[in-house]
Amino acid sequence: MKNSTPARIAMIGGGSWATALVKILSEGNVVVRWWLRSETDAAHIKRYHHNKSYLSDVQINPRKVKVHTKIREALRDADYVILAVPAAFVSNALLGLTPKQFAGKHIVSAIKGMIPEVNQLVTDWVETTYDVPKDHISCIAGPCHAEEVALEKQSYLTIASTGVPCAEAVSALLTCRFVKASPINDLYGVEYCAVMKNIIALACGITHGLGYGDNFQAVLVSNATQEIRRFVDTLFPVATRDLSQSAYLGDLLVTCYSPFSRNRTFGNLIGRGYTIQSAQMEMNMIAEGYYAVRSIHAINEPHNVPMPIVDSVYRILYEGASPVSEMNALKREMK
Amino acid sequence: MKNSTPARIAMIGGGSWATALVKILSEGNVVVRWWLRSETDAAHIKRYHHNKSYLSDVQINPRKVKVHTKIREALRDADYVILAVPAAFVSNALLGLTPKQFAGKHIVSAIKGMIPEVNQLVTDWVETTYDVPKDHISCIAGPCHAEEVALEKQSYLTIASTGVPCAEAVSALLTCRFVKASPINDLYGVEYCAVMKNIIALACGITHGLGYGDNFQAVLVSNATQEIRRFVDTLFPVATRDLSQSAYLGDLLVTCYSPFSRNRTFGNLIGRGYTIQSAQMEMNMIAEGYYAVRSIHAINEPHNVPMPIVDSVYRILYEGASPVSEMNALKREMK
Repeated sequence: MKNSTPARIAMIGGGSWATALVKILSEGNVVVRWWLRSETDAAHIKRYHHNKSYLSDVQINPRKVKVHTKIREALRDADYVILAVPAAFVSNALLGLTPKQFAGKHIVSAIKGMIPEVNQLVTDWVETTYDVPKDHISCIAGPCHAEEVALEKQSYLTIASTGVPCAEAVSALLTCRFVKASPINDLYGVEYCAVMKNIIALACGITHGLGYGDNFQAVLVSNATQEIRRFVDTLFPVATRDLSQSAYLGDLLVTCYSPFSRNRTFGNLIGRGYTIQSAQMEMNMIAEGYYAVRSIHAINEPHNVPMPIVDSVYRILYEGASPVSEMNALKREMK
Repeated sequence: MKNSTPARIAMIGGGSWATALVKILSEGNVVVRWWLRSETDAAHIKRYHHNKSYLSDVQINPRKVKVHTKIREALRDADYVILAVPAAFVSNALLGLTPKQFAGKHIVSAIKGMIPEVNQLVTDWVETTYDVPKDHISCIAGPCHAEEVALEKQSYLTIASTGVPCAEAVSALLTCRFVKASPINDLYGVEYCAVMKNIIALACGITHGLGYGDNFQAVLVSNATQEIRRFVDTLFPVATRDLSQSAYLGDLLVTCYSPFSRNRTFGNLIGRGYTIQSAQMEMNMIAEGYYAVRSIHAINEPHNVPMPIVDSVYRILYEGASPVSEMNALKREMK
């Protein structure tokens, strides 16, 4: 294995999830070309071998990881391109690139959100924008907070793709001492669930901010699994889908219950009365659920799947509805 | 409503769940005859109107709640008998009683465990021991930590019974300002799930005690829902059962994730290397999962349903297996 050709991977993004993925990949036989927007952060990594802005304890191995600030250089000879920037920034990060730069490559979305301008899943957007064949596109899901990867806590990932060889290859790249990655072929189910879990975590945060407790959250999450099931089973029915698998339920749980969850933190601030703007400033991070809820709400409009939790979060964040009265209404609806 | 005859309820048990249930019931039109084994605790409640040993902030309303230390007196004119002692102590608490004392009454199990000597569900044991008709027996489930009830945090209960009027009547008694109780007819599914969740919470505690993190726990809980489903669907198939409802999933979540969970705390101590005896002494409380895992393991023997998590906990607690190596094995099995 040591003498085989290393896998060539372009990592797009400089945040905590990108840093965690670089750490996981570096356990294997790889060359990672890591693109960061921030020239300061890139220079710091080159010199000191750690990302000062995110997961700064993670050591970056300079023999395996090359740092770039020009995205074309990072992509040039890559077999795999991993997108790990917030969904709201991905089209900007890839600005100026054309299908040519993606030809023949596997594209992996590590993004758990939707492209807000077009309400598209990231994998759909990559397919249509860069003419990448669907079976060369995959998405990384699974209950895996970057902060625990940094600590080498045992974690699990699920790699979803309609192309089985693609999912298997990416799973192999991401399996290491402390991460087990498994392939799955339900791309839409996994990706929509990954998007929606952020909305649910945001709702959990709102309820905690309002003073609701763990009893309520357990009921909220149970109702949420049913809401997610109604949505994905209506829009993308798959007979073999089992939403209790860790790619779906595990991902939801870790996001709703972990203190690391930024969506939950964002919701908590909203529940405590912060405005959206001040909550975003307080966190200095993007909460994907903020954008996701607008996209899911729009996508559901023609289908009209009953989604009381998503609808409540939407009204709170986009229509100025009061968190107190929205949760009072939800409280009566749930059981 | 205020002028109608109050419901007559006997509450059997003096712990935190019994105290929380007394608080919930006292919101309605009831007379509760509350039996406690401890004469000191009973005398204290009579005099000071709170239970000094459990949930001591909860005010007990003396106009609605009468305290007894003789169980026959508590039962005498009751329409409903609520059992809220640990499963391991229930047969002892009811010692000397005969079917006559239970004739015509509704029996409600608030116990989330099994009678250890006979590996029986509490509702089965009540039916066979006291000749109570099955449709007069119910069990209280749902994500509802007593500590949050004391704080009047919005909570949900599910009342399971094969008798619909029975489940509806008990639900009505337990619905109040801050609790919504709903009937369900899947008695075995709900009761077994309530028993097994304690084993899973114990497993979660063990992994945290060993240093595993939230990523791992999310995968463990996801795998656990599948394990529970295999078990209940094999032993008691019900076509309409939906394990994502809060009676099942919510109850599991609150127990696995709440800092109040005694099973999780017990497991944590085991994972950190305490012996079983020293963990029990440290907690000064019974962890139902400790007994439940032995019963479930025995019940599953002829069926041989694959239950890797239950089996691991069993081996750790009853066969001296090392938590480290058991969790290493589980780690490889899960995905």
